[in-house]
Amino acid sequence: AVMSRVHNGGDAALLEFNQEFDGVEAKKIKLDLSKNEFEIDAELATAIKTARENITKFHSAQQEGSVKIETTKGVSCWRKSVAIQNVGLYIPGGSAPLFSTLLMLAIPAQLAGCENIVVCTPPSKVNPDQEGNVLVNNVIGWTCQLLGIKEIFLTGGAQAIAAMTYGTESIPKVEKIFGPGNQYVTAAKQLVQKDGVAIDMPAGPSEVLIIADDSASPRFVAADLLSQAEHGSDSQVVLVSNSKVLIEEVEVELANQIIALSRREIAQAALENSQSILVNNLDEAVDFSNTYAPEHLIIATENCDKLAGKIINAGSVFLGNWSCESAGDYASGTNHTLPTSGYARNYSGVSLDSFIKKITFQKISEEGIKTLGPAIEKMAEAEQLQGHKNAVTVRLEKLKENV
Amino acid sequence: AVMSRVHNGGDAALLEFNQEFDGVEAKKIKLDLSKNEFEIDAELATAIKTARENITKFHSAQQEGSVKIETTKGVSCWRKSVAIQNVGLYIPGGSAPLFSTLLMLAIPAQLAGCENIVVCTPPSKVNPDQEGNVLVNNVIGWTCQLLGIKEIFLTGGAQAIAAMTYGTESIPKVEKIFGPGNQYVTAAKQLVQKDGVAIDMPAGPSEVLIIADDSASPRFVAADLLSQAEHGSDSQVVLVSNSKVLIEEVEVELANQIIALSRREIAQAALENSQSILVNNLDEAVDFSNTYAPEHLIIATENCDKLAGKIINAGSVFLGNWSCESAGDYASGTNHTLPTSGYARNYSGVSLDSFIKKITFQKISEEGIKTLGPAIEKMAEAEQLQGHKNAVTVRLEKLKENV
Repeated sequence: AVMSRVHNGGDAALLEFNQEFDGVEAKKIKLDLSKNEFEIDAELATAIKTARENITKFHSAQQEGSVKIETTKGVSCWRKSVAIQNVGLYIPGGSAPLFSTLLMLAIPAQLAGCENIVVCTPPSKVNPDQEGNVLVNNVIGWTCQLLGIKEIFLTGGAQAIAAMTYGTESIPKVEKIFGPGNQYVTAAKQLVQKDGVAIDMPAGPSEVLIIADDSASPRFVAADLLSQAEHGSDSQVVLVSNSKVLIEEVEVELANQIIALSRREIAQAALENSQSILVNNLDEAVDFSNTYAPEHLIIATENCDKLAGKIINAGSVFLGNWSCESAGDYASGTNHTLPTSGYARNYSGVSLDSFIKKITFQKISEEGIKTLGPAIEKMAEAEQLQGHKNAVTVRLEKLKENV
Repeated sequence: AVMSRVHNGGDAALLEFNQEFDGVEAKKIKLDLSKNEFEIDAELATAIKTARENITKFHSAQQEGSVKIETTKGVSCWRKSVAIQNVGLYIPGGSAPLFSTLLMLAIPAQLAGCENIVVCTPPSKVNPDQEGNVLVNNVIGWTCQLLGIKEIFLTGGAQAIAAMTYGTESIPKVEKIFGPGNQYVTAAKQLVQKDGVAIDMPAGPSEVLIIADDSASPRFVAADLLSQAEHGSDSQVVLVSNSKVLIEEVEVELANQIIALSRREIAQAALENSQSILVNNLDEAVDFSNTYAPEHLIIATENCDKLAGKIINAGSVFLGNWSCESAGDYASGTNHTLPTSGYARNYSGVSLDSFIKKITFQKISEEGIKTLGPAIEKMAEAEQLQGHKNAVTVRLEKLKENV
């Protein structure tokens, strides 16, 4: 119902939903960021700039040149990476707007060369301008300006996904939609695929699996488990270890550390659904992890580099005692948009690749078709596709005429 | 209904469907290819070997090494390509079994290193062994043996897609399903995505768009249009030209060449739904093509290399007078599994990438977390994720203790 109201009603429907769902009265959906100034804490600004730099470095290295392959003399084939022209980024709002997700999606989109980058986020009640107009969350606004994003669209939830799929008076239609969200956003992303839009990946609750041995710090392991548990009561946190002592020490640390967390009730609920698993050896731990296919995998063992080589299903892997998941969540450079719910078996996380298509090209010379033509004719004939064969035959005949 | 019968009934259901839909009584679903010999025409064998070699050359070049990026001193990040472990290839049967599709899917799957490559194809009535057991089509069987594929599963249609999704007594469950098929196969592939299986891409009728100027050969252009038109009455063939003369000459050639085609009724029906478009200049032709986003694009113009640089939406592009689409369909080396119905805007064709996941890794040293940690803490705090912050804080505290 939400989807079709947006499809038919456009901006007007979005403004109604802003009132209905977010309790916010906005005058318009499009916010021209150049007309506003956003101020944030200086240390936070520096931190965001550092993250931006690292994310840029890591994703720039994913750019691929075009290599021509001469598969047969006179037959040149190559691939070219071309940006998806119009992409939509959904940035959830609520109490803690995820400016980190904005960095993780907008930076590779810009590096890929996407022509239109449409950013949708719920309107912010707490941040009106001098004339009382509803604005965007301050840090989101500031980060957009840092990235050179000039406008943003104040709409959230399933209605934002619908708007980017069908287009409205102010929101351009896009070809691929990225970004996390609640169950309504997830459901909407699944639905719109039928209407020709691609999505980044199927979404589910966030997870971490930690493989740890006696060399791991129980304090660090507990902190990493809690950092995942605080995401939501449906978050999965799993500890797999060959050390009973470590598992017991981590339990003690969990009990100590959880007290200080503001989101401790959520974290507690997540922990109650989670498990510590004692295995006979670390190879068993790796097998378990490969079967589980975790979104995040921390390997806090002495031989972590060796074990890393055996990982076949995981979204992102963190090696050793000092590589906490939050590093990848925010600032080390890797992308934090990763496959959950076992989808690490068949999907990659977001990367530059997510924002491009690879188009194949070929150029065949007279010599090339002369050499390769008879093979094509033979195969087309065997598949009973005479027209396919004929496209070669007319060319070979022409070459004979020319002799 | 088909899907749930396979889900519940396994092999027995598949054998029933073989009788019901294909009119074939097979004793079992799994066919051990090592126990049979398949003989094919010697020239066809040579042709298939040539195609195999070229497809291997082109797809091998898509292999990517792993590059470590030090985004911050002490923070190393890299990606590693890992094969999807279990993949399913659906090869349609019927009157003309598509052994070319087997090459296009199995070769990159093998290059990627997929552990289990499950091949499903309908049983062949016309090819029983000496004891009267139902076998596979001869060329499909021969091609499997050439590729080292040791077993094949005799089931077709939506039931094959269900079998690879849920697994049966003889067919292993897979993580990603590839391959074309009729409307039932396409519908089944859409459905199973809800059950955690990935698919190669959304499917639709095949298309070619040809941009041609006065330098093009009307005979070649007509042959290329017909090679696409013979696929099905719903195939789309479009000619875009800045030359009225060429369009007229192509019409004449179409009428001449279609008479000789065995599938002329299908081709005629496709032509009737198709169009020739006269544009003012070739830039307009490129704009039209980019909006249309064709699966196959042939650019038969004098300045084809220049126009190629302006193409932003297409599956595979064929440049010049000698590069016919059938070359790419069979033997030049590029993949023929391509996005249709405008999906070239947001999807790439099948490549080595389709069979792998890219897993990110990171390793952070004590120095790395010391340098980067404060930025992570600041960002986590701003997103009100205290647990994320704490995972860094416990590490920085430990480093201070150590000093």
